[in-house]
Amino acid sequence: MNPISFVKSLIKISKGKPQIPKSLENNELLKIIYKRRSVRKFEDIEIPKDVLDAIIEAGRLAPSTVNLQPWSFAVLDKKEWRELFNKPLPFNANKAVIILGDVHRVLKVIPVAQNCPIVKYTLAVMNASLAAQNMNIAAEALGVASVMLSDTGTGGFFHAEYLKNKLNLPTDVFPLMTIVFGYPKGEYPPMPPKLPVEEITFKNQYKEPNDSILQDWIKQMHAGFKVTNPFSSFQAKLNYYTSNLERAEKELKRMIFGDKN
Amino acid sequence: MNPISFVKSLIKISKGKPQIPKSLENNELLKIIYKRRSVRKFEDIEIPKDVLDAIIEAGRLAPSTVNLQPWSFAVLDKKEWRELFNKPLPFNANKAVIILGDVHRVLKVIPVAQNCPIVKYTLAVMNASLAAQNMNIAAEALGVASVMLSDTGTGGFFHAEYLKNKLNLPTDVFPLMTIVFGYPKGEYPPMPPKLPVEEITFKNQYKEPNDSILQDWIKQMHAGFKVTNPFSSFQAKLNYYTSNLERAEKELKRMIFGDKN
Repeated sequence: MNPISFVKSLIKISKGKPQIPKSLENNELLKIIYKRRSVRKFEDIEIPKDVLDAIIEAGRLAPSTVNLQPWSFAVLDKKEWRELFNKPLPFNANKAVIILGDVHRVLKVIPVAQNCPIVKYTLAVMNASLAAQNMNIAAEALGVASVMLSDTGTGGFFHAEYLKNKLNLPTDVFPLMTIVFGYPKGEYPPMPPKLPVEEITFKNQYKEPNDSILQDWIKQMHAGFKVTNPFSSFQAKLNYYTSNLERAEKELKRMIFGDKN
Repeated sequence: MNPISFVKSLIKISKGKPQIPKSLENNELLKIIYKRRSVRKFEDIEIPKDVLDAIIEAGRLAPSTVNLQPWSFAVLDKKEWRELFNKPLPFNANKAVIILGDVHRVLKVIPVAQNCPIVKYTLAVMNASLAAQNMNIAAEALGVASVMLSDTGTGGFFHAEYLKNKLNLPTDVFPLMTIVFGYPKGEYPPMPPKLPVEEITFKNQYKEPNDSILQDWIKQMHAGFKVTNPFSSFQAKLNYYTSNLERAEKELKRMIFGDKN
């Protein structure tokens, strides 16, 4: 990207602030929801048990389809993570929660959907993700920052088989993401480039994306990534994913449909 | 279920309170996260534009994998809902947001994963669900109650083709759920039977479900459902899903893998 377009993109990013209506800008919870960022620098401070418990509780109390609660959470501290994965918890985070979509449990008492792999998978992924975001917000409310790992630490659905083996997961339990928690070190990072609200909303008929908005956004993604990751690039990240796509697809397919596929 | 076991189950439900550690019970935001319930009775009061905007903004600012924001939101008021679906918005709700996983947009500027349908679907479902829960909590913070529709109003992934047709969704846009919003009418319903934390968490190896806890929970589900839905039953709800499973599975399969499947 040429320097001028790079700087232009940075300026646009810096303008991308949360849009809190004036009338509501004193709502404390709204402020916390809006100010949450994915943080990748943590202090070497222990998260007390009551604080971690309160975060997990937010996951436990999340809403779910027909209240089926199709989720499980693997809760690990630094030491347990290192023992299980033979590597340190990324970003010097203090605790990790691996979010799993889990219909294995509910099928034991409600034996339906056995032959509907995609219904099962959708139910699990959708609801476990609701619980995950409840934990992210609860943590933020307690001054604890978090980031959801995808490729870093091979903690997400992109490494389904690795996690299934490590955690000894049965059929119908699906690894989704790892949330790592800790007390933030230094300032929060700026908000990454968000698509404008008019681009992601419509009324009653799907609205095709606006090319110039998209081109603008992708430039900001490249520029913003460079600033927060000076030694990497957005393109490098995309290349990593691209080179792992086929493997991940095969693993997910096996996980959802069984070995016959 | 015999009357004694029914009453026993109700008593257990009434004991199932959020477990806020004493040291944190004054955290206002935590209280709001914990007190959220799925509400199905709404006052005939309009949600002001700034309040609805603030809820949508919480969805827009949700975290997502590599900040790809793979989601779209169809935002409809009572009238628009009736015009689109030829039926009233359920529960006298005031506004509806249909949550869609959307990788159609991002593929226009980042043309990867075309041949990885499950990776695309997982990315979309997981991240759009994070945005959905951010909206649920933001609404709660503004005194607006919500419920996520699955079968009611055919607003969820269980009726994928119906929603794809109604909203004219292209390939790689996946309907997940409809959240309806409104000001709650009367008291909040009690907390539905939640699984105990020791049942849904483990450390480093998956823990098989505890049968007696599960049996207990399912009894509470039947009893609790009867109280909140005197004219229906949990079994009736399960039967509805069971009878629709194969259709839903076929529709999801077509949506994810295309017609060749």
